[in-house]
Amino acid sequence: MPEPTRRAPSGAAALRADKTAAIAEAVLDELAEHGYGRLSMEAVAKRAGVGKSALYRRWPSKQHMIIAVTSELSVELAEAPDTGSLHGDVLAMLGAVADWLTHPRFSRIFPDLIAEANRDPDLAQALARSIGEPRRSRVTDVLDRAVRRGELPPDTDRELALDLLGALVYWHVSIRGVRPDAGYLERTAGTVLRALGARPAV
Amino acid sequence: MPEPTRRAPSGAAALRADKTAAIAEAVLDELAEHGYGRLSMEAVAKRAGVGKSALYRRWPSKQHMIIAVTSELSVELAEAPDTGSLHGDVLAMLGAVADWLTHPRFSRIFPDLIAEANRDPDLAQALARSIGEPRRSRVTDVLDRAVRRGELPPDTDRELALDLLGALVYWHVSIRGVRPDAGYLERTAGTVLRALGARPAV
Repeated sequence: MPEPTRRAPSGAAALRADKTAAIAEAVLDELAEHGYGRLSMEAVAKRAGVGKSALYRRWPSKQHMIIAVTSELSVELAEAPDTGSLHGDVLAMLGAVADWLTHPRFSRIFPDLIAEANRDPDLAQALARSIGEPRRSRVTDVLDRAVRRGELPPDTDRELALDLLGALVYWHVSIRGVRPDAGYLERTAGTVLRALGARPAV
Repeated sequence: MPEPTRRAPSGAAALRADKTAAIAEAVLDELAEHGYGRLSMEAVAKRAGVGKSALYRRWPSKQHMIIAVTSELSVELAEAPDTGSLHGDVLAMLGAVADWLTHPRFSRIFPDLIAEANRDPDLAQALARSIGEPRRSRVTDVLDRAVRRGELPPDTDRELALDLLGALVYWHVSIRGVRPDAGYLERTAGTVLRALGARPAV
């Protein structure tokens, strides 16, 4: 599918921001309650107190609408901290992933989108382009800075490093259902630093 | 919920194994096509060519049936290899996780069960008890052997070690949708060994 519209299409000036915000809230509520497969444009419009045409003026399809709303929330929460040390940055990033995955509604929404993406390659691509890649590109800057400080080897396997930062917290929180406390995040940061072969800054 | 019945309840002798196998296949097909939420006992019975009563003679509810069928498949695929080295064992375990998560039907079933579990704490508990814990307990033996060989420190953080073995492959395969090839599994095994602070056997 084409790039989801973050900016409103032609006629944008006529789209009221408060209506867009109300629709976004309704999309998140409906996704959390019923999931992607059972979400209907009718139900979103009703919950937002608007007509269905207000939805279609903003997004051409249900998939575009859902991707636009969930990616805005997800990319915003992808922190690219600069604490001065890789340990501090990793700890902050793991905390941000934990916040994202425990976000009251999103904790139910994200696993559901993943399930749907495993049935629908088109949705999988849209999610990768609108959530996965922007999040990963933000985090790459953090790794590059650590390489420049001498904390990471220049040939650091960036793909695996990025996987590590998301995977452990997802498995712990969203698959095993364990709440991530400060002790867990600290242990995980230590594990990630060892996995990356990190050294103290020189 | 009570422990899912792996052994058939009273009257077991009368339950035909070929019928049970046909029902299990139908459950997996229906789960892969429609997901947990939309699976109906009627559709499973019809697909298996049996009456609904044949289902209820085996399991008291839809949840029991699904947990019994999916845990049998999952726990069977949890390899506890003994190759003689931690590197060999980790590589074999990562390969087994990759096989499990790319299993033609299960690749769609598992993410869907996780999504449902994030909406249904009762299902989450049943999955942890019937899939998560048995898989983790098998793998713990592998870590214990590595500690005895001196490849892992005695105070190895087993919880994080077990998370590492599932999390990275899940994130790569089921969330990012990347096919796990031999090169990927080898790089990941190296990452896991570094994360665990592994040393060659003494």
